[in-house]
Amino acid sequence: MIVAPFGRFTEGRVPDPGIAALFTRENRWQARLDVEAALALAEADAGVIPKESARAIALTARIEKLDIKRVLEATASASHPLVPLIEEFARTVGSKHGGWVHWGATTQNITQTADVLVLRDAHRAILQQLGRVLRSAAVLADDSADLPMAGRTHSQHAVPVTFGFKVAVWIDQLVAHTERLERLDDRLFCVLMGGAAGTFASFGDAGRVIEAGVAHRLGLHPMRVPSRSVNDGIVELVLVLAQLAGTIGKIGKDVYALMQPEFGEASEPVPEGTVGSSTMPHKRNPQLALDLLTMSAELRALAAPALESMLHDQEANGAMTALLEDVSASAAVLAGDMLARLEVIVSGLELNPARMRANIRLSEGMIGSEALMLALGEEIGRQKAHDIVFEVAQAAPQSGKPFLELLQADPVVGAAFTESELRELIDPAAYLGLSQQIARELAGCAVRTSDRLRRLPERTPVMTR
Amino acid sequence: MIVAPFGRFTEGRVPDPGIAALFTRENRWQARLDVEAALALAEADAGVIPKESARAIALTARIEKLDIKRVLEATASASHPLVPLIEEFARTVGSKHGGWVHWGATTQNITQTADVLVLRDAHRAILQQLGRVLRSAAVLADDSADLPMAGRTHSQHAVPVTFGFKVAVWIDQLVAHTERLERLDDRLFCVLMGGAAGTFASFGDAGRVIEAGVAHRLGLHPMRVPSRSVNDGIVELVLVLAQLAGTIGKIGKDVYALMQPEFGEASEPVPEGTVGSSTMPHKRNPQLALDLLTMSAELRALAAPALESMLHDQEANGAMTALLEDVSASAAVLAGDMLARLEVIVSGLELNPARMRANIRLSEGMIGSEALMLALGEEIGRQKAHDIVFEVAQAAPQSGKPFLELLQADPVVGAAFTESELRELIDPAAYLGLSQQIARELAGCAVRTSDRLRRLPERTPVMTR
Amino acid sequence: MIVAPFGRFTEGRVPDPGIAALFTRENRWQARLDVEAALALAEADAGVIPKESARAIALTARIEKLDIKRVLEATASASHPLVPLIEEFARTVGSKHGGWVHWGATTQNITQTADVLVLRDAHRAILQQLGRVLRSAAVLADDSADLPMAGRTHSQHAVPVTFGFKVAVWIDQLVAHTERLERLDDRLFCVLMGGAAGTFASFGDAGRVIEAGVAHRLGLHPMRVPSRSVNDGIVELVLVLAQLAGTIGKIGKDVYALMQPEFGEASEPVPEGTVGSSTMPHKRNPQLALDLLTMSAELRALAAPALESMLHDQEANGAMTALLEDVSASAAVLAGDMLARLEVIVSGLELNPARMRANIRLSEGMIGSEALMLALGEEIGRQKAHDIVFEVAQAAPQSGKPFLELLQADPVVGAAFTESELRELIDPAAYLGLSQQIARELAGCAVRTSDRLRRLPERTPVMTR
Amino acid sequence: MIVAPFGRFTEGRVPDPGIAALFTRENRWQARLDVEAALALAEADAGVIPKESARAIALTARIEKLDIKRVLEATASASHPLVPLIEEFARTVGSKHGGWVHWGATTQNITQTADVLVLRDAHRAILQQLGRVLRSAAVLADDSADLPMAGRTHSQHAVPVTFGFKVAVWIDQLVAHTERLERLDDRLFCVLMGGAAGTFASFGDAGRVIEAGVAHRLGLHPMRVPSRSVNDGIVELVLVLAQLAGTIGKIGKDVYALMQPEFGEASEPVPEGTVGSSTMPHKRNPQLALDLLTMSAELRALAAPALESMLHDQEANGAMTALLEDVSASAAVLAGDMLARLEVIVSGLELNPARMRANIRLSEGMIGSEALMLALGEEIGRQKAHDIVFEVAQAAPQSGKPFLELLQADPVVGAAFTESELRELIDPAAYLGLSQQIARELAGCAVRTSDRLRRLPERTPVMTR
Repeated sequence: MIVAPFGRFTEGRVPDPGIAALFTRENRWQARLDVEAALALAEADAGVIPKESARAIALTARIEKLDIKRVLEATASASHPLVPLIEEFARTVGSKHGGWVHWGATTQNITQTADVLVLRDAHRAILQQLGRVLRSAAVLADDSADLPMAGRTHSQHAVPVTFGFKVAVWIDQLVAHTERLERLDDRLFCVLMGGAAGTFASFGDAGRVIEAGVAHRLGLHPMRVPSRSVNDGIVELVLVLAQLAGTIGKIGKDVYALMQPEFGEASEPVPEGTVGSSTMPHKRNPQLALDLLTMSAELRALAAPALESMLHDQEANGAMTALLEDVSASAAVLAGDMLARLEVIVSGLELNPARMRANIRLSEGMIGSEALMLALGEEIGRQKAHDIVFEVAQAAPQSGKPFLELLQADPVVGAAFTESELRELIDPAAYLGLSQQIARELAGCAVRTSDRLRRLPERTPVMTR
Repeated sequence: MIVAPFGRFTEGRVPDPGIAALFTRENRWQARLDVEAALALAEADAGVIPKESARAIALTARIEKLDIKRVLEATASASHPLVPLIEEFARTVGSKHGGWVHWGATTQNITQTADVLVLRDAHRAILQQLGRVLRSAAVLADDSADLPMAGRTHSQHAVPVTFGFKVAVWIDQLVAHTERLERLDDRLFCVLMGGAAGTFASFGDAGRVIEAGVAHRLGLHPMRVPSRSVNDGIVELVLVLAQLAGTIGKIGKDVYALMQPEFGEASEPVPEGTVGSSTMPHKRNPQLALDLLTMSAELRALAAPALESMLHDQEANGAMTALLEDVSASAAVLAGDMLARLEVIVSGLELNPARMRANIRLSEGMIGSEALMLALGEEIGRQKAHDIVFEVAQAAPQSGKPFLELLQADPVVGAAFTESELRELIDPAAYLGLSQQIARELAGCAVRTSDRLRRLPERTPVMTR
Repeated sequence: MIVAPFGRFTEGRVPDPGIAALFTRENRWQARLDVEAALALAEADAGVIPKESARAIALTARIEKLDIKRVLEATASASHPLVPLIEEFARTVGSKHGGWVHWGATTQNITQTADVLVLRDAHRAILQQLGRVLRSAAVLADDSADLPMAGRTHSQHAVPVTFGFKVAVWIDQLVAHTERLERLDDRLFCVLMGGAAGTFASFGDAGRVIEAGVAHRLGLHPMRVPSRSVNDGIVELVLVLAQLAGTIGKIGKDVYALMQPEFGEASEPVPEGTVGSSTMPHKRNPQLALDLLTMSAELRALAAPALESMLHDQEANGAMTALLEDVSASAAVLAGDMLARLEVIVSGLELNPARMRANIRLSEGMIGSEALMLALGEEIGRQKAHDIVFEVAQAAPQSGKPFLELLQADPVVGAAFTESELRELIDPAAYLGLSQQIARELAGCAVRTSDRLRRLPERTPVMTR
Repeated sequence: MIVAPFGRFTEGRVPDPGIAALFTRENRWQARLDVEAALALAEADAGVIPKESARAIALTARIEKLDIKRVLEATASASHPLVPLIEEFARTVGSKHGGWVHWGATTQNITQTADVLVLRDAHRAILQQLGRVLRSAAVLADDSADLPMAGRTHSQHAVPVTFGFKVAVWIDQLVAHTERLERLDDRLFCVLMGGAAGTFASFGDAGRVIEAGVAHRLGLHPMRVPSRSVNDGIVELVLVLAQLAGTIGKIGKDVYALMQPEFGEASEPVPEGTVGSSTMPHKRNPQLALDLLTMSAELRALAAPALESMLHDQEANGAMTALLEDVSASAAVLAGDMLARLEVIVSGLELNPARMRANIRLSEGMIGSEALMLALGEEIGRQKAHDIVFEVAQAAPQSGKPFLELLQADPVVGAAFTESELRELIDPAAYLGLSQQIARELAGCAVRTSDRLRRLPERTPVMTR
C-alpha cells in the first residue's frame, strides 16, 4: 500500500498503530471468507441452502486453507476482483457443498461488507489511540494548568493564558472528534446484502431475514436500502478523520511554532541520538510535528475524492466504489500514523516555563492593555478608554519608551491610576481569567472520555468461526 | 455575494430559497447588534455593567437606527471589521450608556456569534427545503413503486428494479443527511463568548455566567472551551452540506442520464417556452439537472478550504476565521440553491413507462441471467451454473441469436428447463425482489421525516428585542 | 497518498508502465548515490575536495556495494532520512576518502535532486506511453473519420458528427498535455544544490561552479535561486498530470457512456474469459473505463496537496518537502497506470456503426433542426426561423407525430420547402460539417507528435558511473 | 465559488485591481455583442451573410443601445443564458438586418468567446500588478541584499542568509509564474467558433475562414478542434493562478512569522489609525498578510473544481461549462485581490535590522556549526567532524554553557583551533555565502521582467467597433 510511498523516516520513533496490517491482502480476504460464511449460515437458517452445506462452508472459511497462488493467477486472467477467490473457496469446500458458496450474492456484497469489517477494526484501533492521547493530554493539561504564557491571536500577543488552557483547546476538539467517531455506527457498520441491485431479488422473500442473519453474525447493521450506490456512511468516516487531521494539524502547528528558538517554550521530545541535519550538527528539528503537518494535508486531501465517490450512476458505478475503497483505507492508515506521532508528542512534550515567562514580558506590559482599558473604561466608557490606551500603545514601539512610563505620562491614565495600580493592572499573572479552571475541567473531560474508550467492548467477534 | 458570480439563468424557474438574503450586510449587522444587546443584558444581570445601560443598549440595537454610511467610511479608514460598527452603535446609544457597549468582548465574539445566528436561520431554511423535497419524493416513490425498469450497475443492465426503488435510494440518503443536519446542534449553535483568548479574563469570575446569559438570550449553547480557534462545529456544517451535495449530484446524474434520448425514461419538467438552444430549435436540454452537477462540484469544493480553516495558530488566526466565514456562507447559499432545483425536479419529474419497458427488453432476457443461474445452480451448484450461463450470455451478442434460443440449445440448460420455464425464469417482471416494498417503506420514511421537519420549532427568537 | 492500496484487479489486462518500479527504495537510493558521486566529482573539479577521493566516491556509488540492513537499522535509531545512508556509503568508500562524502551538502540537496532524477525517468516513460496512445488514436481517428453518429451536447442530440471527430477532440487535448509535459524542463529538471539554506555558504565561492558541475553530470539545470522552498517545478508536474487525468477521465466517461446497452455504439475490448459479475453471468462491464474514472479522481485529488506544499516557511519546511515527495510520486504512478489502460482502450476500441446509425435516427430528423432553421432563416431571418422550428420541434414529442409531417403541415415551412427538400435538409449524413477533415487533421497531428516522442533522446545518462 | 461574499474589511487599504469590474453583467454582455459583431463581419467577408447586414449589426453592437430590462425579463421566462440578449439585439438592429444576428452560432460560441475576452483583460491586469510587485520587490531585495539574518529551515536556525536573499526567493517564483501566465496564450486566448458541436456544420465550407475572421477581429486564436468540451486552456489559467496563490501564501506566511513579537524582524505597513483589536488596544495585527493566507486557500481550492470541469460528456456538458465559468472568474478576481495586497506589503515592508542581529545570536554561534564542521572535516573527514560537533551542539542547551566554551573544551576541536579561529569560524557575518549576490541578481531579474511587463501591448482592440 502506498500511503507514504516511501514510508516515513520517523517510523522508528513511534509505536506501530497496526492499521496498515489490517489492510493486507490476507486480512482482507479472510474478511471476505467470513462474510461468505455468515451468508451461507444465514441462508441455511432461512431454508435457502442446505444446513449441511452452510456448515461445511463456514468450517472451510479460513484463508490458510486456500491456494492463494491459484487465486492470483485466475485474477489476472478473469480480471475480476472476487470470482477467482470464491471459485477457489468453492473448490476447497468440495464439490458437494461448494456449489452453495456465494449463493445469491453479488461481488460488492462481499467485498464491501468485508471492508467494513476491516474498517471497524481500524476504527476501534483509532479510538484506542485517541484514548491514550487523551490520557496523556489530561496529565499535560493538569500539570501545566497554572503555567502562564502569552496568549497569541494572529501570532501577536493578546492576553495571557496558561499552557494548560492551550491543551484544553486540543482536548476539546479531540473529544469532539471521538464522539463523532463513536456516533458513526449506524450508517457505517452495515452489511451491504441486497444482491445485484439492492432489491434482494436473488434471495426471494427471505431477503430481509438473510440480511438480518448475516448482520447478526458479523455484528453489523442492516441497511434501510441496501443499494450499492449508498455509501454515505463510509464517506462520513473519511470526513470525520479529515476533521481529526485538521485538529491534529493545528496541534502540530502549535508545537512547531513553540519549538522555534525565538519562542523556545515547548518542544516535542528529541531522543538522544536523533540527528537533525546532515550538515548542521546543531539542528534539533521538529520531526514528529512536521509529520503531523504532512499527514494533515494528505488526509484532508482525501475529503474531495471521498465526496466525489458519492456520484454513483443509477444502481452503482464500480469506479466510485473502487475510489472509496482506496480513499477510506488510506484515510484509516493516515489517521493511525498521525495519532501514533501525536501520542509521542503529547506524552513527552517538554515545557520551558522560563522562556514562557520571558516571552510574556516581551511587550513590556502591553499584553495587559485590555485589563487596563476596562479599568479605565469603568470611569470614562469603553470606547474612550480604548482610544486612549490605543494611542499610548501604538506610540510605544516608535518612542522606544516603556509602556508603563507612557501610561503614567498620559493625562487621563496618569490621573486615574497610581504607578502601583498600573503595575498591578497590567500584571499578566493577574489576568489569567479562567485558564486554570478550564485546563482542569478539560483534563477531567479527557480522563472521562479516555476511561469510556478503555471500556470499548472486545473486538466484535465474527460469529462464523 | 459572488457564489455564482453571474447568477444562474435558471433562476426564473425555481423558488427563491431566501438564503442569500440572510447574508446581506444589513442582516448580518443586525445579528451583531443582537449579540451586543444580549451581551449587555447578560452583563447587567451579572452585575458587571449597569442595568440601565444594558436596557438602553438593547433598546437601541436596531440596525435602522444607525448611520450606515458613517460605519462604512470608518471601516475604510480604521481597517477593522467591527470597531466602526460598535463606535456608531455606542454613539447612537448615547454618551451615558454607550460606554458599556461591547464590554469585555473581542471582535470575534460578536462577529462569529452573529454569523452563527445567521447560519441557524440558513440551517432552518435548508431543513424546510429538505422537508418539501422529501414530501415530493414520497409521492414519487409511492406512485412509481411498481413501475419496472432496468436496474443498471456500471451503466450496464443488472437485474430489474422499479422506479420507486430508485427514488427510495434518493430518500434514504436525503433522510440520512437531514438527520446529520439535525444532530449538529451542540457544536454548531454556540456562542463564542470567552473574550480575547477564550479565558474570560475580561469578565472576571462572572465569565461563565455571562456566557450562559448570552447563550440563553440567543437560544444558543455555551462552549466547553470558548477558544477562537475551535471551529469544528461550523466546519462540520460545511462537510454535511458537501455530503448533501454528493447525494444531490448523484440524483442530478440519474435524471440527466434517464433524460437522454437513448433512454427517454424520465425527464425533469421542461415548462413551455423554455429554450434549449440558440441554434438547435429541437433541443430540450436538462437545465436544472445540469445546475445540480455544477453546484455539486462547487459545494464539494468547499470541503477542502473548510478543513484547511481548522489550522489555527495558537489562540486564533484571523485568516482561518475569515476563510471559514466565506466558505460557510457560500456553502449555505449553494445548498439552498441546489435544494430549490431539486424540489422542482422531484415534484415535477415526468416518467415514461413505455420506454422503461422497451429498454428493459434491450438485452432480450439477459437481464434475467441471475434468476436463471440460481435456478440452475440449485441442481448443479452456483459456480457451474454461472459458468454455463456465462458462456451462453457472452456468446449471444456475437452470434446474433436470441438468448432464449441459445439457452434452449445448451445441453445442460435445455435439459433442465422447458422453454416456458425458461421464459418465466428470465421474465423481468417476476424478478423485482423487494423493490416495491422498499419503495413504499422509504416513502413512509420520507413522510415521517418531512412531518418531523414541518414541526420545526418557530425560528428561535432572539430574546433581546 | 492514495495509489490503489490493494492494486487493481485489471492489472492482468494491461501492460506494466514500469513507473512504480522507479520508486522502489533501491532505485531511489541509487539515485542518491548518483547525486553524491556527481557532487564529489564536481567538487574535485572545483578544487574543493581531493580528486582521488572524488574518484573513489564515484566508483563506490553503487547501491549493491552497501549494507542495506545496516542503513535501515541506523535509520530507525537516528530518525534521519539520509544520514545513515551516507554514513554507510562513507564507510564503504573507506576511511581515507570517505570523509569527503556529502561535502557541503544538506540532506534535501541529495534527496530532492535524486527524486528529480527518478521523476525524469517517470516523465520519460509517461511521454512514451502518450506516444503510443497517440499512435493508436491516429489510426482510430483515421478509420472512423467518415463514420457518422449523433453529436450530443448535455447528452441530448445536437447535430451529427463522426466518430473520428470525437477522437480528434481526445487527440487535441492529449497533444496539448504532451506539449505541457515537454515544456516543464527548465523549472522541473533542476539540481537543488545550494547547501543548507540555498546560499552556497558551504561551498564558498565555488558554489555556482559546483552546482554547474553537478547539473552537467546529471543532465539537469541549475536553479536561479537554489532555495529549498522553491518547488513550483515539481508542483507544476503534478498539475499537468492532473490535467491529463481530467482529459483521460473525459475519455473514460465517453467510452463508458457509449458502451451502455441503450447506446451500444462503442465498447472497450472485453477479452474472452473476462468475468463481469459474480452473480450476473451476462454482464460485460466496462472495466478499464471504470479504472480511468477512479484514477482520474485520485490523480486530480493530488492537485490540492501539491498546491498546499508550496506553503513553505522561510528557507524551508520539511513537512512541505515530504508532502510533495509523496504527492509527486503518487501522481507519476497514477498517470502511468491511467495511460496503460487508455492505451488498451484506444487500440482495441470496438465500434458499432449500425447502432450509431440507428441512434442518430432516434429523433426522427430533429437532429437536423439547425440545418433546416438556417435554410429557412435565409428567407425570413434566423430568429423567426428559430421560433417556427422551435414550435414544431417542441410539439413533436407530445403529438406523437413525425417531425417531417409536422414540418410539412406548418404554413411557413410547408410553403418554403417541398417534402424532398425537407428530407434533404434534415439528412444527418449531409450535415457533418468538417468532422471528417478535422478527424484526419488530428490524426496527422497525433502521428507527428507520436513521431517526435519516438525520437525522445536516450534516457539521460548519469555521467558519474 | 467563494470570493469574499462580504467583501474584506481591508479594502480601504489597498488599490482596486479593477478585475471584479470586468465581470459585471454590463461588461460581459458587451463582450458578447462584440463577438456577435465579429461573427457577422467575418460571415459577410465569407459571403455567408449580406455585408450591409453585418455592418448594421456591428454598428448596433453597443450594450447601451439595448433595453436591458427586456432581456432580464425574457431570461426569466425563456430560462436561457443568451437567446433573450440576441433577440433584443436583433430587434435593435431592426427587421431588415436583425435576422442575420447570431447566424450559425451556438450559445457557447458567443458566451465562452466573450468570457475569454474578459479573461484576457483580467490576465493583462494581473500581469500589470505582477510588474508593479516585482518592481517593488527589486528595490526591497537590493536594499536588503547585505542585511544578515538567521536562515531558518523547519523554523529552526540553519545558516545565515540576508533579507535580500529571502526576497530573491519570492522574486524567483513570481517571475516563474509571470512566465507561465505569458505562455498561456495559444490554448487560452481562443475563439470557440465551431458551431453546435464543433464541426462548423452551420457555416458550410466557410467554417475555418469565418473562424479565422472572428479570431482576427478579436485578436484571438482559432482552435485546433473547436469543440465545446475542450477547455484545458481556461483550466490551465486557473491552475497557474492557484500556483501563484501558493507562492503568495508562502510570502504571506513569511511576513506573518517575521512580524511576531518574538521575531520582530519585519512588518507589513500598519498605517496610523489602523485598529488591531476592539478589546486589546495594543494590537498591531498583520491584516494584509492574513488576507493573503485566506485568499491563498480560497484560490487554491478552485483547482479541484477547475479540474473536475474537464469531465465533459461527449460533445459538451453545460454543467462543466458553467462550473468553469464560475471558477475562472472567481480565480481572476481573487488573484487580483491578492496581488493588490502583496503590492502594498512589498512596497511598504518595514525591516528591523537590530532584531535580525539579535535573533541571529540566539543560538550563541551554533548557527555556524556547519562552517565549523567543514573546517574540522578538512582534517578528519566530514562524518567524524559532524559527529563531534553534533555531540557538542546537542550538549550545549542541557549544560547551560556557551557553545564556544564547550567547543574549546572538546579535545579534538580544542586541539584544532584557537579561540579566535573558532570565533571567526562561527561568525554569522562571515558565512553568508552568495546571499548578497543572489539578492542582486534576482533584483535585476525582477526589473527586467517588470520592464517587459511595462511594455505589454495596449489592450487588444476589438476590431468591430
